[in-house]
Amino acid sequence: MRFGINFFPTVSPEEKSGAQFYDECLELTRRADELGYNSVKTVEHYFFAYGGYSPDPVTFLTAAAMVTKDLRLVTGAVIPAFSHPCKLAGKLAMLDNISHGRLDVGFARAFLPDEFAAFQTSMEESRDRFNEGIEACRRLWSETDVVFKGKFHQFGPVTMLPRPYQKPHPPIWVAATFTAESFEWAGRNGYNLMIVPYVSTREKVAELLKLYRDNYAQSGKEPGTEQIQMSYHCYIAEDGEAAQREGKLYFDDYTNKLLVAVSAWSRHKTDQYKGYEHLVEQIKRNTYEDALRDTKVFVGTPAQVAEQIAMVREWYGEVEPSLQINFGNMPHEAAQRSLELFAAEVMPKYGTRVAATV
Amino acid sequence: MRFGINFFPTVSPEEKSGAQFYDECLELTRRADELGYNSVKTVEHYFFAYGGYSPDPVTFLTAAAMVTKDLRLVTGAVIPAFSHPCKLAGKLAMLDNISHGRLDVGFARAFLPDEFAAFQTSMEESRDRFNEGIEACRRLWSETDVVFKGKFHQFGPVTMLPRPYQKPHPPIWVAATFTAESFEWAGRNGYNLMIVPYVSTREKVAELLKLYRDNYAQSGKEPGTEQIQMSYHCYIAEDGEAAQREGKLYFDDYTNKLLVAVSAWSRHKTDQYKGYEHLVEQIKRNTYEDALRDTKVFVGTPAQVAEQIAMVREWYGEVEPSLQINFGNMPHEAAQRSLELFAAEVMPKYGTRVAATV
Repeated sequence: MRFGINFFPTVSPEEKSGAQFYDECLELTRRADELGYNSVKTVEHYFFAYGGYSPDPVTFLTAAAMVTKDLRLVTGAVIPAFSHPCKLAGKLAMLDNISHGRLDVGFARAFLPDEFAAFQTSMEESRDRFNEGIEACRRLWSETDVVFKGKFHQFGPVTMLPRPYQKPHPPIWVAATFTAESFEWAGRNGYNLMIVPYVSTREKVAELLKLYRDNYAQSGKEPGTEQIQMSYHCYIAEDGEAAQREGKLYFDDYTNKLLVAVSAWSRHKTDQYKGYEHLVEQIKRNTYEDALRDTKVFVGTPAQVAEQIAMVREWYGEVEPSLQINFGNMPHEAAQRSLELFAAEVMPKYGTRVAATV
Repeated sequence: MRFGINFFPTVSPEEKSGAQFYDECLELTRRADELGYNSVKTVEHYFFAYGGYSPDPVTFLTAAAMVTKDLRLVTGAVIPAFSHPCKLAGKLAMLDNISHGRLDVGFARAFLPDEFAAFQTSMEESRDRFNEGIEACRRLWSETDVVFKGKFHQFGPVTMLPRPYQKPHPPIWVAATFTAESFEWAGRNGYNLMIVPYVSTREKVAELLKLYRDNYAQSGKEPGTEQIQMSYHCYIAEDGEAAQREGKLYFDDYTNKLLVAVSAWSRHKTDQYKGYEHLVEQIKRNTYEDALRDTKVFVGTPAQVAEQIAMVREWYGEVEPSLQINFGNMPHEAAQRSLELFAAEVMPKYGTRVAATV
């Protein structure tokens, strides 16, 4: 079983400078590589404490590439709606070369109304922009003299440089949350999948994953070669009660910042984002206590977390947990502790290579 | 006197992979930092052997930040016409933080018709997009709750994250070539200047620099605090005749690749780029022999190059030569040799700190 770490910044400038935040994340990344984790992932968001320290995941992942040897570098995700495909495909190909082929490219639609407003892009078009952006990148990476005639972008013939390191192109992943159509589409196209399970019930997640896998099996790719990353808040300490108590502080901090970022949804409703008009209510209902009870977070002693992982594998099959290791404005030392304890005491139970010593 | 290195890729995938090219550039960058160079710079271009390996200078410079301690990281330049300002300001602020304040941001208009065509942006608007892009970045970096009402972009109130490391923002540079208006504008706004002198006569360059400095002195900034970087092809060997002979190979290779990229100018003419309709002819007229004779390149023994630098300083005053150290499809070892010889035998004559030994 593979495990990754996942930086979803939830800090404000008043709490921590960008320089300190990136220094800490890069230190965790360097150490995760030594400890045998499989991947590091980061997100694309703007303006809010929720995600705002990561307006460009490629920039952070390029720094991460330089302090690691084996770790896969995962955009989780890039947003085609906010960049021209020639720019996006080009910089991702640079990172793929700089890292000697360690890039995994996750794409997403984005869902914060205020971001679409700033980029003067309609949310109504976001699925079409997402589909078109993936298609444009895929073609720019794998073909030469590309003539592209999309709804939003028309260009060519052009040959993107540099050519990607991985052939025909870096693995493509898509981010999906609620919508059955997204899971079906990802599978049908043979793309890998990244999901955030904690906003849905276990039954709903299992159903969506089945839909994805069934479609993947018919995509022409070998069934079982699909990869699925699932994001989980992770907080571990030797003292399980302390872990649960402290975890709540950072989970609630994270949730409060998320609520600020999504507050515009209380004023929006669109067929293109079915159910999002209830997002604010849904997040408020999702308490830390519920998340703990329903194993939607990995919190506790190493032994407790190992059991939580076992349960997730039983429910969802072979997936890669992507651990949000420094959610909320958590002290760096707490994130370091979770990272070390997970590697030393949880990973060996799942056949992951034994943690390196330093 | 300060000296920098400057990567203007001029290689095709048939000649060298992206991975090899970046590995070599990062090795030169790491060594330049040890040797006491001041800066590393790279460009934004697409699709052609001329520049195409650098579709996103921020990505390369982020990798460069991770292998250096003191080197200034210079975008030479980013193109506001091809990115949304919220994306551009955000990722530059990330790099400023990751590098702990070593970022210098050069902006340019771009000048290749095929790039504008791919980005579906009119060249007629390029000056307005350039001005607006700089203004938007400057405000996003230095103000909070920015409400921006430009000709091309309207957004806000938004607060860009992360906040830049350098306050109020990273130093702003502008790229200028022929046009008097550009030099005047850069000075009047108190921006630093980056120029490519080899397409103009010495007298013309001196005149444009005077225009810039006169305007800078009236910008409200302290006269003499302006910074000017000038790009020069650089090729050094102990054997001066070999240097001149081999330098021609790589210069001609560079020029031939440049001619492919600018070929669209033989079919264009616009008041917004006065004189560019003659660009192809002008580049063809500019032979290597002329460039050598007129000290528009630094080529020869270390002693000869030291004299060339003296001349440039006499003509133009205090400027920072930005050395194109691996122009054309030059072998890596040749670039390494130029880098080492320049540091060991030229820099000490100009008061630059003595090269570190390894």
